[in-house]
Amino acid sequence: MIALDDIRAARDRIADGIRRTPVIRADQLKTALPGGVEPMLKLELLQVTGSFKARGATNRLRTTPREQLAGGIVAASGGNHGLATARAGHLAGVKTTIFLPENATPAKIAKLREWGADTVIVGTAWQEANEAALAFCERTGAAYFHPFADPLVVAGQGTVGLEILEQIADVDTVLVAIGGGGLISGVSTAIKSIAPHVRIIGIAAAGSPTLLRSLEAGRNIDIGRATTSVATMSCSHTDPRIFDIVRKNVDGIVLVEDAEMAAAAKWLWFEMGLAADLSGAAAIAALQQGRVAVKPGEKICAIVCGAGPDALTS
Amino acid sequence: MIALDDIRAARDRIADGIRRTPVIRADQLKTALPGGVEPMLKLELLQVTGSFKARGATNRLRTTPREQLAGGIVAASGGNHGLATARAGHLAGVKTTIFLPENATPAKIAKLREWGADTVIVGTAWQEANEAALAFCERTGAAYFHPFADPLVVAGQGTVGLEILEQIADVDTVLVAIGGGGLISGVSTAIKSIAPHVRIIGIAAAGSPTLLRSLEAGRNIDIGRATTSVATMSCSHTDPRIFDIVRKNVDGIVLVEDAEMAAAAKWLWFEMGLAADLSGAAAIAALQQGRVAVKPGEKICAIVCGAGPDALTS
Repeated sequence: MIALDDIRAARDRIADGIRRTPVIRADQLKTALPGGVEPMLKLELLQVTGSFKARGATNRLRTTPREQLAGGIVAASGGNHGLATARAGHLAGVKTTIFLPENATPAKIAKLREWGADTVIVGTAWQEANEAALAFCERTGAAYFHPFADPLVVAGQGTVGLEILEQIADVDTVLVAIGGGGLISGVSTAIKSIAPHVRIIGIAAAGSPTLLRSLEAGRNIDIGRATTSVATMSCSHTDPRIFDIVRKNVDGIVLVEDAEMAAAAKWLWFEMGLAADLSGAAAIAALQQGRVAVKPGEKICAIVCGAGPDALTS
Repeated sequence: MIALDDIRAARDRIADGIRRTPVIRADQLKTALPGGVEPMLKLELLQVTGSFKARGATNRLRTTPREQLAGGIVAASGGNHGLATARAGHLAGVKTTIFLPENATPAKIAKLREWGADTVIVGTAWQEANEAALAFCERTGAAYFHPFADPLVVAGQGTVGLEILEQIADVDTVLVAIGGGGLISGVSTAIKSIAPHVRIIGIAAAGSPTLLRSLEAGRNIDIGRATTSVATMSCSHTDPRIFDIVRKNVDGIVLVEDAEMAAAAKWLWFEMGLAADLSGAAAIAALQQGRVAVKPGEKICAIVCGAGPDALTS
């Protein structure tokens, strides 16, 4: 689907359109993580629009000919990709319409409107919102931005991996939340190409174990229905090219419950002053629950991939 | 009150007890700041306990003989210094009691309890809580940690200034929120000692203009009653040593209304994914309102000094 060169090209293309986010060690903790792990946190929740999704959407925007944008931009998204797409439309000065499933959070919907997007709530799962989005594009000629099944989007997300290698030179393991699998595809391609010894672990919602079940089955399966309430991690069927990358690059996938992510988000807020959304807290949840085997002294990077008020408002 | 060497000593003393917080540029904005300023944000809201106050309290803790801590630790605080003191007590393994005025936020009180502190709500202003705290120490022999009128605390806060000079080598202007004035005293002493050309601007709540009125009067005055609802910035009378430092080091003080800080906190959340408390948003409020004169190309650092749910829960 993509190679390292695509990610490097994306990095150069989007450099002045995104933020290089900082890394901070999770130390000075009141409640330690199992094994005393003090992960390095890659703060993608401080990315413009509140998540790494701005990287992929900006790469997609900057590779789409101007005339193809005249009819507006459309995406289906539980929130973060929608925000990144809404911002792309804002940058391009065209109308953006975001289709969301009913489990999208009010906070994300309010932010979408603040970026100037129209929002349309359709169905109870991403697939239904996505069908409506595709039909809308068919009807109106708007450009469709897929959240993950797009090499340009995956290459954009992969720039997070390049930064991690630059910022944490001796990193051993990188923990990446999984929804459709775009982030882990990009990050793992970047990291395994440059530093193949670095372990890549995916963290999926227990209610959306699509890529784990696909790895177990040896083929890209459809789980029928994702039951997680975390819209940004809900995906019952991913792209076969994403599956191929994950099968090749990812060393393991572990599952976390929605409530475990909620507890991890509260931990990130209390300990670190970070307002992560539940997908942003997934990697910490996996560490808290002891789902990732960690060796003494192992240097772990957890990508805190999205911002949200979840831990502060409940 | 303190000199650069005190701050350097504090830095070495507390290095393994606090976090070196990252700096990020506020760029890629939807709503630009006046003059197109893109300030560097010093992310002290990611400091342990959620604010810079952990620096001063840790320095105070590590310079207090063990036997003086046996009776516990006490502070009076609108929140952030209380949290830092509660953590000091947690580190020392002694009882901590925090006295708070009624305008302390429920979020800060909940966090104090999570750090293991007893909390006592007394009076409508910090001074009343402080009198109760002092009486309690008299009665019990507990060690009293003052939020600002203590050279060891001010030296600890000054370590923020050392980091800013290391992290933003060519910084022109640093914006610092003012409550009692401990942070700006420490930061300005560090910065003016090393780089006297750097401009230091204080941001005070319009309802607590104590140091501005003192500068205007040429002496350390008592304004009678602070009317700001922002507990972390409320102080009707500061220490004469703080006044002397501010008079010597600070290039100007500007005022911001509580509502302007609330708007700035919302801006920080939408634009940057940062959950700042209102004092943490004060410097951005000053920029948003055009209260700080800025030259083209001037490199501004705004200290985002505290975390809070203010922008996310209202």
